[in-house]
Amino acid sequence: MNITGATRLYAIIGDPIAQVRSPEVFTDLFAAAGANAVLIPIHVPSARFDSIIPGLMAMGNLDGVLVTIPFKARMRPFADRLTAAAECIGAVNALRRETDGSWSGEMFDGVGFVRAVRAKGATLHGRRVLMFGAGGAGSAIAYELAAAGVDSIAIRDPDYDRAVALAKVLHTAFPSCQIAASASNPSNEDMIVNASPVGMRPGDGMPGALGTLAPGTLVGDVIVSVSPTALIQHAMRHQCTVVTGRDMHAGQIEAIMRFFAPAEREATTDGAAR
Amino acid sequence: MNITGATRLYAIIGDPIAQVRSPEVFTDLFAAAGANAVLIPIHVPSARFDSIIPGLMAMGNLDGVLVTIPFKARMRPFADRLTAAAECIGAVNALRRETDGSWSGEMFDGVGFVRAVRAKGATLHGRRVLMFGAGGAGSAIAYELAAAGVDSIAIRDPDYDRAVALAKVLHTAFPSCQIAASASNPSNEDMIVNASPVGMRPGDGMPGALGTLAPGTLVGDVIVSVSPTALIQHAMRHQCTVVTGRDMHAGQIEAIMRFFAPAEREATTDGAAR
Repeated sequence: MNITGATRLYAIIGDPIAQVRSPEVFTDLFAAAGANAVLIPIHVPSARFDSIIPGLMAMGNLDGVLVTIPFKARMRPFADRLTAAAECIGAVNALRRETDGSWSGEMFDGVGFVRAVRAKGATLHGRRVLMFGAGGAGSAIAYELAAAGVDSIAIRDPDYDRAVALAKVLHTAFPSCQIAASASNPSNEDMIVNASPVGMRPGDGMPGALGTLAPGTLVGDVIVSVSPTALIQHAMRHQCTVVTGRDMHAGQIEAIMRFFAPAEREATTDGAAR
Repeated sequence: MNITGATRLYAIIGDPIAQVRSPEVFTDLFAAAGANAVLIPIHVPSARFDSIIPGLMAMGNLDGVLVTIPFKARMRPFADRLTAAAECIGAVNALRRETDGSWSGEMFDGVGFVRAVRAKGATLHGRRVLMFGAGGAGSAIAYELAAAGVDSIAIRDPDYDRAVALAKVLHTAFPSCQIAASASNPSNEDMIVNASPVGMRPGDGMPGALGTLAPGTLVGDVIVSVSPTALIQHAMRHQCTVVTGRDMHAGQIEAIMRFFAPAEREATTDGAAR
């Protein structure tokens, strides 16, 4: 990979930023696709978000942006159009510049999880889901699970009101899925997803008390930095199918590459965005 | 070279940008110096300069900026401190973030030219210079020539008032050097510098009528895209020492690398700018 004056830019924004893996992963994928493009890390100190982002989006050779913590909700207004998922969840994790210069926003966190589930050969239709965490990742995953036809989602979050608000928004979008905030674990779940930060720190246990799991239970965890987490270990002891944060991350990458499509963009651009 | 989340950023800004060579050159030099840093091209459409630049300079992992046409004068206010040359000329072509987060600005166009002259084994002290072009490059080169002890500089520019203004500013900075705008070629010059755009387009001749040149005449040209230019060809026919735009460019690179010092910066930073 060579950076030239004609190289097209993609950026990942976050605070902090040094820990992200996307620059290596996507810059390699861009090269493999034959695109003269790189993905660079941009450290956006939170207090400077409002001065950095409009400037970033105005750069003539920037074609796409990935968004990580803590900016997924804050970046939403910078998209001129949103997918239904991003609109419903109120957050984006990827934006693409269209040939007319406008920006499209998508939220791939849930898409990556669903892809990872399918890559394991598991089905989602009709599942009864217990979800820990009603934040950005939980919202995105719950949205895609509802879209994939799960039967019910019980949402647990230390901030009960946040869980109630998410359930309400999702129920409006998917009236046939039973979605509700839950103060305790339901008894009939056959899928468990941890979308909370529990499991990230040493000594963290599981996000909630869980007893014996039936072997057909599907267990997922968004934690990337620790693998396997206590939850995933518990699931493996019960011969459950597991989807880790790393599986979910891999699932996202393919979907985001298709969204960015750097080589096709280079071949077909009419120069309007240049 | 690998881009990671911890990679430090340097940028070159210009409009247009696709033609610049600095991203390849500096990214290779950074790697050779053992620094985890890249230099990326940023296309700043002129009309969006005011929204892009403050955002760019606020990025937490941006350590330096190179400036090309047409922004060298416009970038000056973004430096918190300037070298004497940049202050006098009113333009910068490189900015560096200091560990306290402030920005220092320098103008290397003239420095690169003087280095290239010295690399050819030529001396500058006492020279009588005829200079074509009183724009950004001409100003920077004239400043460094005066600083290097040339005897006189006659400045020719289609915009005579611009030449007068430059002569006035430089004469204040270097009272012992005879600097004046000139409506015609003086007769006793032993150094000729083209810092005008003449020579860049096919069919361009020399920037002014020049007859036989004495062999000791030193002839320089800032044009990079065409080599040799009509002026350089004329000088070579008369066995003069020549300094091309590419020589000047090479002279700048070493000076700018010393200014950016990406590896030393990585080793000594206290994290204040991160």
